[in-house]
Amino acid sequence: MFDLVIIGGGPAGISSAIYGASRGLKTLVLEKKMIGGLIGSVSTVTHYSGIIEEETGESFAKRLKAQAESAGVAIIMEQVVDVELEGRVKKIHTEQNTYEAKAVIIANGTIKRMLGIPGETEFEGRGIGLNATRDAEKYRGKEIFVVGGADGAIKEALYLSQFASKLTIIHFEDQLGAIQEFQEKIKQSNNISVMLHTRLVAVEGNDCVDTLKIQDEHTKDVKVIKAKGCGVFIYAGSTPDTELYDFLDKKEGYLVTNEKMETKIQGVYAVGDICVKQVRQVATAVADGAIAGVNAANYSKNWK
Amino acid sequence: MFDLVIIGGGPAGISSAIYGASRGLKTLVLEKKMIGGLIGSVSTVTHYSGIIEEETGESFAKRLKAQAESAGVAIIMEQVVDVELEGRVKKIHTEQNTYEAKAVIIANGTIKRMLGIPGETEFEGRGIGLNATRDAEKYRGKEIFVVGGADGAIKEALYLSQFASKLTIIHFEDQLGAIQEFQEKIKQSNNISVMLHTRLVAVEGNDCVDTLKIQDEHTKDVKVIKAKGCGVFIYAGSTPDTELYDFLDKKEGYLVTNEKMETKIQGVYAVGDICVKQVRQVATAVADGAIAGVNAANYSKNWK
Repeated sequence: MFDLVIIGGGPAGISSAIYGASRGLKTLVLEKKMIGGLIGSVSTVTHYSGIIEEETGESFAKRLKAQAESAGVAIIMEQVVDVELEGRVKKIHTEQNTYEAKAVIIANGTIKRMLGIPGETEFEGRGIGLNATRDAEKYRGKEIFVVGGADGAIKEALYLSQFASKLTIIHFEDQLGAIQEFQEKIKQSNNISVMLHTRLVAVEGNDCVDTLKIQDEHTKDVKVIKAKGCGVFIYAGSTPDTELYDFLDKKEGYLVTNEKMETKIQGVYAVGDICVKQVRQVATAVADGAIAGVNAANYSKNWK
Repeated sequence: MFDLVIIGGGPAGISSAIYGASRGLKTLVLEKKMIGGLIGSVSTVTHYSGIIEEETGESFAKRLKAQAESAGVAIIMEQVVDVELEGRVKKIHTEQNTYEAKAVIIANGTIKRMLGIPGETEFEGRGIGLNATRDAEKYRGKEIFVVGGADGAIKEALYLSQFASKLTIIHFEDQLGAIQEFQEKIKQSNNISVMLHTRLVAVEGNDCVDTLKIQDEHTKDVKVIKAKGCGVFIYAGSTPDTELYDFLDKKEGYLVTNEKMETKIQGVYAVGDICVKQVRQVATAVADGAIAGVNAANYSKNWK
């Protein structure tokens, strides 16, 4: 039995684990895909205090992993498929195993939203469904489209513009929703253009995406863009990955905690992007982890 | 006039500044002593997600400073001596200048507590009133005493034990208040001993500290320890540096904020160790800064 099991190995989960282990807890992190979570796959980590120069998602995730391991945290790469958290002994079922714990911290964040348009699934990996860090090189010298207008989309557009012959941002609102720093960089770029009040409504092609259909949000006119072999990178937001936690309180889909990061069930905490919060950043995820780690350690030590 | 002035350049202040500047604010940090704050002077930074291997206070503080400067934050090394924050235009007076701002973030943390015992002021810099990072080398091969039993004290004791011929921890409570990770390292060390329920009540000497007087908390007996040329490092906790902010709400001396890090005065925020909070760590200070920076940017942009 573990003192503490953490579901999810992004910044919130890893921070929880480091704090739990430092307080003497036998601590396990279960991660389905990659230590670092969503931030581990971004091109650039920005604004988090203490990052190194030219910090990438990969370099940041690598340090998180090393730090957790050096703290004595066990990391197992398995997907959690079911949980039983309401009893005194918490049970966490993965596809392969069942783990028991005194305390559990839920840290499995959000999942990227798809557009749900024709061609999106069919052409996945062949022009759409792409990851900037992993796939940018494949689209060097080609035309690139970025769908989205928030910070995450614009940051990746700036990165991808270094590879693209020409980059177009397609955003459905009347203005970009990104911070000024990123908007200024967009203006300074010489190969980025922005299409506002525009939606991507379909992608078509043969071997790969050749054609984009876009719709003007005001006039509802649909236009066709020909761009043979282009890359379409979608940043259409994300939704909290709370499917397993229907017994917990939610607000607009996010888990509700108090200031100690406790859910309504004793010994069960939630941290990071899966929680209700005003500012959704690595900084706040890491702080959540510190707070939950400290409180889970108190709980676990007094567990009878 | 600045959009945002931040009082204090520790992790909370620097994080605030990075977030403010990234949102387009003309941002100034005023720091009296050293960018990095108290954490900048510790021997080792631990548990904060993303630190580099063998992170020292100095290496961490250096990255914070570079990151803020690269974000376009102005940093001025002046001590704030008075503030007028209740009006629409906030005024911050240093010994040399007056600065005006739309929004202000208070981030000047805590100040280290002194013991207030005979000899403490007289022998400052000559065996007492020392800083582990700065002064450890001077006490190589000598006897070292560390006063305190919380995480900060024990972490520095572990560092100083590498220099000391013999290190003694003097703590007034019946057990150490440090996390298990540090307590285990103390046990593993071969030159650290711990004196519990013991207070340092005086230091004496000629050119430097030669004699320590300690008192048993249970029996009240006073003993004399002879240790010519020893080093005494004091970690007796800290108090919030709120002298300038009597017009704000406080709880046990700490500033009260809401979840947006707003104080009761519009456009005035407080972050980091100076605030009421459950978990006082770099992680939570940095998160406070992110939250206040985002909210101060909204406030400052709608300022009329």
